[in-house]
Amino acid sequence: MKKSVLFILSLFMAASFFSCNNSENSKNGDRGALASSAAEKVYVAPGEHDEFYAFISGGFSGQLSVYGLPSGRLLKVIPVFSQDAEKAWGYNEETKPMLNTSHGFVPWDDAHHPDISQTNGKLDGRWVFINGNNTPRIAKVDLTTFETTEIIEVPNSAGNHSSSFVTENTEYVVAGTRFSVPVPQRDMPIKDYKGNFKGSLTFISVDPEEGHMDIKFQLMMPGFDYDLAHPGRGKSHGWFFFSTYNTEEANTLMEVNASQNDKDFIAAVNWKKIEEYVNNGGGKKMPANYAHNVYDEDTHTATSTMKKEVLVVDPLEVPGAVFLLPTPKSPHGCDVDPTGEYIVGNGKLSADLTVHSYTKMIEAIENKSFDGEAYGIPILKFEDVLAGTVKQAGLGPLHTEFDGEGNAYTSFFISSEVVKWNVESREVIDRKPCYYSVGHVMIPGGNSADPFGKYVLAMNKITKDRYLPTGPEVTHSAQLYDITGEKMELLLDFPTIGEPHYAAGIPADIIKPNSKKIFKLDENKHEHATLNNGDARVERDGNEVHVYMTMIRSHFTPDNIEGIKVGDKVYFHVTNHEQDYDVPHGISMIGANTSELLIMPGQTETFVWEPKQPGVWPFYCTDFCSALHQEMQGYVRVSPANSNIDLSWSLGED
Amino acid sequence: MKKSVLFILSLFMAASFFSCNNSENSKNGDRGALASSAAEKVYVAPGEHDEFYAFISGGFSGQLSVYGLPSGRLLKVIPVFSQDAEKAWGYNEETKPMLNTSHGFVPWDDAHHPDISQTNGKLDGRWVFINGNNTPRIAKVDLTTFETTEIIEVPNSAGNHSSSFVTENTEYVVAGTRFSVPVPQRDMPIKDYKGNFKGSLTFISVDPEEGHMDIKFQLMMPGFDYDLAHPGRGKSHGWFFFSTYNTEEANTLMEVNASQNDKDFIAAVNWKKIEEYVNNGGGKKMPANYAHNVYDEDTHTATSTMKKEVLVVDPLEVPGAVFLLPTPKSPHGCDVDPTGEYIVGNGKLSADLTVHSYTKMIEAIENKSFDGEAYGIPILKFEDVLAGTVKQAGLGPLHTEFDGEGNAYTSFFISSEVVKWNVESREVIDRKPCYYSVGHVMIPGGNSADPFGKYVLAMNKITKDRYLPTGPEVTHSAQLYDITGEKMELLLDFPTIGEPHYAAGIPADIIKPNSKKIFKLDENKHEHATLNNGDARVERDGNEVHVYMTMIRSHFTPDNIEGIKVGDKVYFHVTNHEQDYDVPHGISMIGANTSELLIMPGQTETFVWEPKQPGVWPFYCTDFCSALHQEMQGYVRVSPANSNIDLSWSLGED
Repeated sequence: MKKSVLFILSLFMAASFFSCNNSENSKNGDRGALASSAAEKVYVAPGEHDEFYAFISGGFSGQLSVYGLPSGRLLKVIPVFSQDAEKAWGYNEETKPMLNTSHGFVPWDDAHHPDISQTNGKLDGRWVFINGNNTPRIAKVDLTTFETTEIIEVPNSAGNHSSSFVTENTEYVVAGTRFSVPVPQRDMPIKDYKGNFKGSLTFISVDPEEGHMDIKFQLMMPGFDYDLAHPGRGKSHGWFFFSTYNTEEANTLMEVNASQNDKDFIAAVNWKKIEEYVNNGGGKKMPANYAHNVYDEDTHTATSTMKKEVLVVDPLEVPGAVFLLPTPKSPHGCDVDPTGEYIVGNGKLSADLTVHSYTKMIEAIENKSFDGEAYGIPILKFEDVLAGTVKQAGLGPLHTEFDGEGNAYTSFFISSEVVKWNVESREVIDRKPCYYSVGHVMIPGGNSADPFGKYVLAMNKITKDRYLPTGPEVTHSAQLYDITGEKMELLLDFPTIGEPHYAAGIPADIIKPNSKKIFKLDENKHEHATLNNGDARVERDGNEVHVYMTMIRSHFTPDNIEGIKVGDKVYFHVTNHEQDYDVPHGISMIGANTSELLIMPGQTETFVWEPKQPGVWPFYCTDFCSALHQEMQGYVRVSPANSNIDLSWSLGED
Repeated sequence: MKKSVLFILSLFMAASFFSCNNSENSKNGDRGALASSAAEKVYVAPGEHDEFYAFISGGFSGQLSVYGLPSGRLLKVIPVFSQDAEKAWGYNEETKPMLNTSHGFVPWDDAHHPDISQTNGKLDGRWVFINGNNTPRIAKVDLTTFETTEIIEVPNSAGNHSSSFVTENTEYVVAGTRFSVPVPQRDMPIKDYKGNFKGSLTFISVDPEEGHMDIKFQLMMPGFDYDLAHPGRGKSHGWFFFSTYNTEEANTLMEVNASQNDKDFIAAVNWKKIEEYVNNGGGKKMPANYAHNVYDEDTHTATSTMKKEVLVVDPLEVPGAVFLLPTPKSPHGCDVDPTGEYIVGNGKLSADLTVHSYTKMIEAIENKSFDGEAYGIPILKFEDVLAGTVKQAGLGPLHTEFDGEGNAYTSFFISSEVVKWNVESREVIDRKPCYYSVGHVMIPGGNSADPFGKYVLAMNKITKDRYLPTGPEVTHSAQLYDITGEKMELLLDFPTIGEPHYAAGIPADIIKPNSKKIFKLDENKHEHATLNNGDARVERDGNEVHVYMTMIRSHFTPDNIEGIKVGDKVYFHVTNHEQDYDVPHGISMIGANTSELLIMPGQTETFVWEPKQPGVWPFYCTDFCSALHQEMQGYVRVSPANSNIDLSWSLGED
């Protein structure tokens, strides 16, 4: 049995290589009569705007990138889970708390699945959520400022992968563990995994007004791997669906040992029923330790709070809330169509796509049409919940999105293609190659009741020879297809930041009108803001020195400072007094071991400098701000530790 | 006097705003009959390659970005001076030494001026150099691997801005200080700047075979600000030219006080003469303390060495080596045409462009046609060195590049345009608006004897309304113009990483054939490489544990590890055994306080994990590598500090 799996794997590997070696053909084959049409379709003329925002996760970069579609232009990298020296994210005093965790300060994570908030099953463009896999966390990005404003750690989780997907009114953002672990964590032999490890599925409530996140409950499931998830919607609103693999509960050489069972499961969770159970006092409080980090837009400052308890629910305590739908084989994607009727399970080692019916599932539950149980959770009969299959559509199916016109688009990693099929008839309509090895696909609004089926974006894992080479490390890539016709048309290859793991797209018009242009200076509540130049000053408190500084085109106040000593810890609290759009200033101090600051109009930020040597040391503006930007600089005099020179500061006094 | 300067400044500010508010007009005006032609000119069809590489500095991002032209697609961000969590640059044990300085570990810098190595005045595509301004450093990027392989700190410098430009055989890469400081650094009043601070111009030799950098000498100049620089070439090879401002030697409110003199200088340095002087034992050795960091491509590991001495040259000791060319007014750019005859000084507060003649300069020197001296350095007579001026070409001129056809292209920050003019006749030929506030312009090979005059790239400082909004922080931008006709044609706006400060462009064909695809495993000399799976192991040395691990599709060896204890410092030395192009693997460990690793085929990297709590903790591959990537994971058991569990490791043993 194990050998046959290895044989299949070697075939897949060969197929993968085959698809990667097509570059010569594709180079010539793609172009043709339609090239100029494709050029015009993706060209956004200077000064014009893209039609869609695409929020593309960076995978191992830990960040979220904002692209315009159809041009494929990178508009912003939003720092989320990784330090970013460019923006001082995780370096300045204001944002360092955002990267705090129960493991201490973690400067990196692996960000996978952005999902935009919804109201009534439609994208509302208020927030985008994204998961950190490695040290399990969920972040929320505010789409008026395009800044990360909240990060909550997820306890009892490991490889937080079946995350972060929202319910149709953003009641919850859901975070499922990928790897099962001992819960609570404890010292035990790895080989005793089976039957002892647990998989947690976490439901994080989202405050409808402010968006504040709070863990409502964790469902403690059998020790499988929970790979992906999607909410029910419309008729199936109130349910959530999770794909599983490693139902073998293997703990080593997973590529073989977790590929033994012919069918794994999609877990169907009736979260409304569990919510009711919890609201009525159900569940058990369990000691925990996880960080909740909140960035306050009034104070421009983040705080981190350690939470000590989490509410845990045993699925066996809530009968009728959790069922398992058998699904071949190691299903990866778990996608729900816009009507909420169909749940597509893409068995990555299966020849066919499995489409389950929500209606049939409910009937089967009512009929108690069970095929045994797993750790007490009823397994529904495969035939009873199956709507049908898409036969031999390709090799290595991963993910499916929907165009709102009754069609589904599935990515195939091994045969490296996107396949369009009809959701009702399960007939294949079209297929187009990807270059190479596509992972996720994205249609704007594809995870909602109301998709915008103009483009599908394929996010690829391998690109060799598609772009100019850049040494051993080459870019990852996305490909944009026009899906307005019956057949898909490849329009554009564009490279991406990190690994373009998944994306959430939205029409620009939903977000544009709400985009903030400046921070109002008179609303700045930062503890160390300097709102009037007259308040600019330098204060000493032991060997801590606080510089209260302002910046405006084209000088700092003060720009000459004396009385600093070796051994001092100097806090520069710098407030940008500009109140015009797109006039940030930067500030850097020679030898500072933190980072520069990039400060938006009306904002205050703080960096720390610990001078190591007497001298006269310059600082300057790092963001070209005016014709006299080069003149925007100053000096700090540093005296020996035992010096008697008094603190003094000035501007324009020779 | 000071008041009149402020008045001029306010006019400039108004002009700048005026140019920024044209967006409505430009939106409609840009499009037209030529739009589809522009679309086709910049469209690089899927699978085809761009014609040029553009290495665009990130300014305050501290990195170097690689773009393809004409598409404007971002192919890679090369980490240079800033930590990069995505690639573990500055986080893993191998690259941390690269960010060492005399101020300790500095995780950020401000990277400005990339310049590609030359042979006989032509781009050779071997290396690209780039300067860190804030904590003065010069880095070298190897263009076979697109990795930073050397960084040298520059002592006695501050705001290392007139850098990093190479001579026509890459004999030297030159780094000039922007801010003058006490040399050596000492505790002194800031107001005593004038006559006491010094400006250092550093000539760093480049080994012609391996490219190793070494400071040959520092020329200790008067305490002006040295803004930009370019080498002589052809007839003027052997000279280097530096623009200066703040010849007033003001120390506060520089926007006013450094804008008083009607003329500042271009400093002309005969480096060949100084080199000869130094080779004959000239100059003085001075104590210093600066880091020299080298990344070894065989060991995949960097080392940092502190150097303790630098050779300093007093210009007065080398008669005939240094002269000052009066140049109106606060000149910024200092550019030399492809023939080496013309030196263009762009006085940013001047109405006209100043074009000096190398031939006339040599005659004036021979005739001793001096107009006094500054700190003993002869000032040449303005009229005697002037070739002519370009009259009232625009407001706020900054930089000039050349097309090799006798034309120059100058950026104007305030009037926000690129102006084309004839180098010989100084007549304006064409002007095109930029959106908005252009800084540098770049023509591939523009800083060489042999430019490739197909495109000019304008790098802009302000973009409001040009792209979809992204909150208060909006992207910076570049604009691409076709310059093959008499009139320029705007083709494309594309957003950029950080501030697109300056760029170096080169035809792709010069670099492509040399681009490395993998690191050969059998040439891996990393101290902790594991070249055979049989050597994979775990070793304990006190509370240090070393994990020697390998990775190949789709498992780690070992993938189960026991015997780790709380309080251990665990080094994971991980070797990627793939030997195919574009098959990196990543590895991350839950709660690791460093970063993930992204390891190229044949490479070894190391991260440190300090587990804080007993339990069974997963690690996994972070770069989607195969159909069974999700199965590429393992577990580490962590026992209490006083545990007696022996170290053990395995793969595939249940």
